[in-house]
Amino acid sequence: MPARYLSFRCSVPWLILLLQTLFLIRSILAFPRVGDIYSPFSFYPDFQDINHMVIFGFGFFLMVLRRYGFSSTGFSFLLVVLAVQCSVLVEDCLVFLGAQHKEPGWISLTNAVVSSAAVVISTGAVLGKANPVQLIVMTLVESVFFYVSRWINRTFLQVLDHVTLKHLHLFGAYFGLAVASRFPEAPPGLDKHRSSPRSELLSMLGTAFVWVFWPSFNSILSDVKERAVLNTCLALAVSAVAAFMLSALTSKDGKFRMAHVHGAALAGGVAVAPTAHSIQQPWIAMILGLLGAVITVLGSHCVQRCFHPALKLQDTSGVHFTFGLPAVLGAVAAVVLRVVEGIDRQWNDLSSLGYLVFVDIGAFCQTTCTALITGLITGLILNTKLLKAVHVSKYFDDQFYWEFPHLSVGF
Amino acid sequence: MPARYLSFRCSVPWLILLLQTLFLIRSILAFPRVGDIYSPFSFYPDFQDINHMVIFGFGFFLMVLRRYGFSSTGFSFLLVVLAVQCSVLVEDCLVFLGAQHKEPGWISLTNAVVSSAAVVISTGAVLGKANPVQLIVMTLVESVFFYVSRWINRTFLQVLDHVTLKHLHLFGAYFGLAVASRFPEAPPGLDKHRSSPRSELLSMLGTAFVWVFWPSFNSILSDVKERAVLNTCLALAVSAVAAFMLSALTSKDGKFRMAHVHGAALAGGVAVAPTAHSIQQPWIAMILGLLGAVITVLGSHCVQRCFHPALKLQDTSGVHFTFGLPAVLGAVAAVVLRVVEGIDRQWNDLSSLGYLVFVDIGAFCQTTCTALITGLITGLILNTKLLKAVHVSKYFDDQFYWEFPHLSVGF
Amino acid sequence: MPARYLSFRCSVPWLILLLQTLFLIRSILAFPRVGDIYSPFSFYPDFQDINHMVIFGFGFFLMVLRRYGFSSTGFSFLLVVLAVQCSVLVEDCLVFLGAQHKEPGWISLTNAVVSSAAVVISTGAVLGKANPVQLIVMTLVESVFFYVSRWINRTFLQVLDHVTLKHLHLFGAYFGLAVASRFPEAPPGLDKHRSSPRSELLSMLGTAFVWVFWPSFNSILSDVKERAVLNTCLALAVSAVAAFMLSALTSKDGKFRMAHVHGAALAGGVAVAPTAHSIQQPWIAMILGLLGAVITVLGSHCVQRCFHPALKLQDTSGVHFTFGLPAVLGAVAAVVLRVVEGIDRQWNDLSSLGYLVFVDIGAFCQTTCTALITGLITGLILNTKLLKAVHVSKYFDDQFYWEFPHLSVGF
Repeated sequence: MPARYLSFRCSVPWLILLLQTLFLIRSILAFPRVGDIYSPFSFYPDFQDINHMVIFGFGFFLMVLRRYGFSSTGFSFLLVVLAVQCSVLVEDCLVFLGAQHKEPGWISLTNAVVSSAAVVISTGAVLGKANPVQLIVMTLVESVFFYVSRWINRTFLQVLDHVTLKHLHLFGAYFGLAVASRFPEAPPGLDKHRSSPRSELLSMLGTAFVWVFWPSFNSILSDVKERAVLNTCLALAVSAVAAFMLSALTSKDGKFRMAHVHGAALAGGVAVAPTAHSIQQPWIAMILGLLGAVITVLGSHCVQRCFHPALKLQDTSGVHFTFGLPAVLGAVAAVVLRVVEGIDRQWNDLSSLGYLVFVDIGAFCQTTCTALITGLITGLILNTKLLKAVHVSKYFDDQFYWEFPHLSVGF
Repeated sequence: MPARYLSFRCSVPWLILLLQTLFLIRSILAFPRVGDIYSPFSFYPDFQDINHMVIFGFGFFLMVLRRYGFSSTGFSFLLVVLAVQCSVLVEDCLVFLGAQHKEPGWISLTNAVVSSAAVVISTGAVLGKANPVQLIVMTLVESVFFYVSRWINRTFLQVLDHVTLKHLHLFGAYFGLAVASRFPEAPPGLDKHRSSPRSELLSMLGTAFVWVFWPSFNSILSDVKERAVLNTCLALAVSAVAAFMLSALTSKDGKFRMAHVHGAALAGGVAVAPTAHSIQQPWIAMILGLLGAVITVLGSHCVQRCFHPALKLQDTSGVHFTFGLPAVLGAVAAVVLRVVEGIDRQWNDLSSLGYLVFVDIGAFCQTTCTALITGLITGLILNTKLLKAVHVSKYFDDQFYWEFPHLSVGF
Repeated sequence: MPARYLSFRCSVPWLILLLQTLFLIRSILAFPRVGDIYSPFSFYPDFQDINHMVIFGFGFFLMVLRRYGFSSTGFSFLLVVLAVQCSVLVEDCLVFLGAQHKEPGWISLTNAVVSSAAVVISTGAVLGKANPVQLIVMTLVESVFFYVSRWINRTFLQVLDHVTLKHLHLFGAYFGLAVASRFPEAPPGLDKHRSSPRSELLSMLGTAFVWVFWPSFNSILSDVKERAVLNTCLALAVSAVAAFMLSALTSKDGKFRMAHVHGAALAGGVAVAPTAHSIQQPWIAMILGLLGAVITVLGSHCVQRCFHPALKLQDTSGVHFTFGLPAVLGAVAAVVLRVVEGIDRQWNDLSSLGYLVFVDIGAFCQTTCTALITGLITGLILNTKLLKAVHVSKYFDDQFYWEFPHLSVGF
């Protein structure tokens, strides 16, 4: 046990207690009576699907590090639950401030669970570097700013509510990257930064869960659910196949690389998310899935080698090319589709088409900028002495946070 | 291979065959024709949820021991399937004896699957100590007595059917503890009694499943399903957060302990089970979740250190504080809520309120006593020579029951 | 790295790309507009169940080999996704050729997902021996011929569409066995052919998933869904119990063997599949489950020791007795039930009964023969030099196909 060991006993529990007390007070004061929320219960199986996907799928998806399995699943579980409660609280505050109309309890809860995926994505970028206090603070700040960003989009750009929610991958990835850029770099000799066959296999388990439940995730609050489900299925199928193809093409000796398969198989779901409810032709969804996989695998080669070192970016579990770049692709695709469709239909009314395109681009830029700026600020705050940043030699290690059954037995 | 090795070839298969023949005969004679059970099929997705939770979630939740993974999942799978069939059989006998009216086949099957959770909980208390013959006998006895206890509650105390089912955690935990108290103690030097990082990770996998599906479990046979689901969700969310808080507060160095997280995250679901359908204010469910987590973590410290050694209790996977104590809390909460609500509404009719409170307390005491007494008797029966109790040196070891692929390779 | 290492960079990616381009072109030309497929969306939760079962359950079920975990899950994921796309394509071609009427998109997709299970079953027979190119070619050929075999049954024997789909276990198993018989035998000293406790535990995880979701799988396209679900549940329950019984009876020292439990627990679902929708008495389903388990466990002893060496059959993950023999049992049971029921009802019209029985037997024989013949031919094609068959010393090894995080750390 090193001398400069930091105990979290004086910080983590009290922070959680404070938050939980806030949630409780808010719940006593403001939560709608349970009786109010009967009607929109029809989507309970779908709600279970996304619950399952966020808690279980993402938790195990993040388990890529060799010695960080407990923290990957445990902390992502904690952060999701905190983020859900925090999101409900933020939405309530916005309602209280008159910035939003009150939604039925179930919709609000579903919104919160979907939003919490953004937090898990950000966690992936700082995985193994941030301690629990930092993660909890990050979760709170991110939940608040994601709602603020959505509120700006809704109010000033008139974007529909369920469309603003689709920016979660974009927001989560770039917020996480900005936060991660403020953390000191891991020393190059540290081999805990790698994965083991066992951790990759469990990560595959999580990936399979996320993959299977993604259609529910993309369709849960959509009006045209059937279309969103089918388009997501097609995009995911193509991106899974393309993942294997590109992995064999890019890796040494033509072997497959598990990390490529994980990332690229999911990229289709991310890329199609903003347009899943509006694509009319299945082949467009398939092309999007293919492009998503391409961008992920090429990204993991080029971006990680050239771009990240230049910007001193670090990205433990490849959040940038699994969620960030495909989300950018999805936003671009949304604009292109809008233009193509608009030219067909609104030939006489190009100004209104121009306005819609401007709104799409504006929402995209606003979300990305908010994510980057608030992420940078959060990263600076997290690395103040108050929050006891972990020393780089202690990165990526479960034993720093968890009591281990047998310290002697290797993990 | 030790000299006093016990083969189960002459006992387990024939016992199972006998049971299976009984079930078959009963099914030929008495099972409703499949055609009778069309109507209440609307809850098939929920039925799948609880099926998934009981078979998969509890099976992996129990996988806490280092060298007992095969038996934890394998035996809990076998016992659930046996318990379901046995429960259907017992219900049929009660119908035949006129003690109960006939329910449609699906309701009966769902009842049986939910009841089988009690058996898995009891199994947790004797995990690693009981051999398959003992476990099978325990399953049969427990299934029968749980139905008898429910029948007493229903007939003499006029408790509603789906409320009696909510006592399953209470019954399962105290039955299991009573059975476990009759087993010889494990020698203190035996290190197989511990967990490994790998087993705790797989147990986390099971916990996440149980956690996600718990709302379906608590609401499956309820009339006011929406309320039961939402209250359970809230209680679970709070207890998951509180689990991390309390774990950091109570453990050495302020680290988290996986066992605390497993137990306390689920405690919310247990504590809220008896009142999930009747709580009108969400914050009450949240407080219950918080108290459930507190009682679990404190219980794992105080009860295990002070109380268990005094009573020579042993509890391999912490069933007492994961299911037993939160269930007691839930029963107390049910009485308190009844009183508070009653004082509001029935001020003029205190005697009927008193009667209802008496019924609640009576049902609680009757269930606990029946569980303890029948558990003790079962424990005595199980440790007769007939059932070939395992020698203490063979506790907690898969190799005693399973053919291993490679004995040389460590597990 | 051996000298005669074969890179798949020049084959796998281009093969996948070719297929994917075909699917895309077909999708641009022929896929129904997404808007056409609204109506039969009611079974989305069931669709998710079978999706989950095929992708996740079978992928982990196959993970029995010690050093083949990545390939088992990864390749089965790839093959399922390819098989689904290929099946949709084949169905479209049949519609184009006028051999079939157009079905709504969802039914067609569900058909394709169910059919892809046949491919996974075949993969089990050649697991660890076939390289990715061989597996992809096998997937394509099998998808095509399964649809052709179903088309023959439908057109010439007037078998109902959803009944022909139930032959998938039969077709998959015997196609796989025929293919496997053309592969060179593994050298007897190769110990990679065995399982490890870890791989068997993960395989148990997959088995539990397949087991839980099997009722959805058997009922998804049935008219009398409730009956199919309940009969499958009963058959699975009995076969799971019988698996433990028979494992203890047949293995050395009366211990349980995990492989028996895996296979026999699922056998009930296979055996009851062709008759699940038509069985009127629950005990018949239970007897079928029992017989399925018996045939699987005895098969794994007798067939593997006597029959397979004589025919030089090899069957890596026991596909023959887990899926093949129970499927034969199911087909026989379907005929017997038809006769028994027919004698009751159609005493005066024995000729029409005879015709129905002839149709059942004909469909069974045609499916088996087609599977065996096309399987043999496929096996011969796969072992031509063009497809770079793996040398026997490289069998059952992940490192041949996957980049490994740490080659030094044992798997």
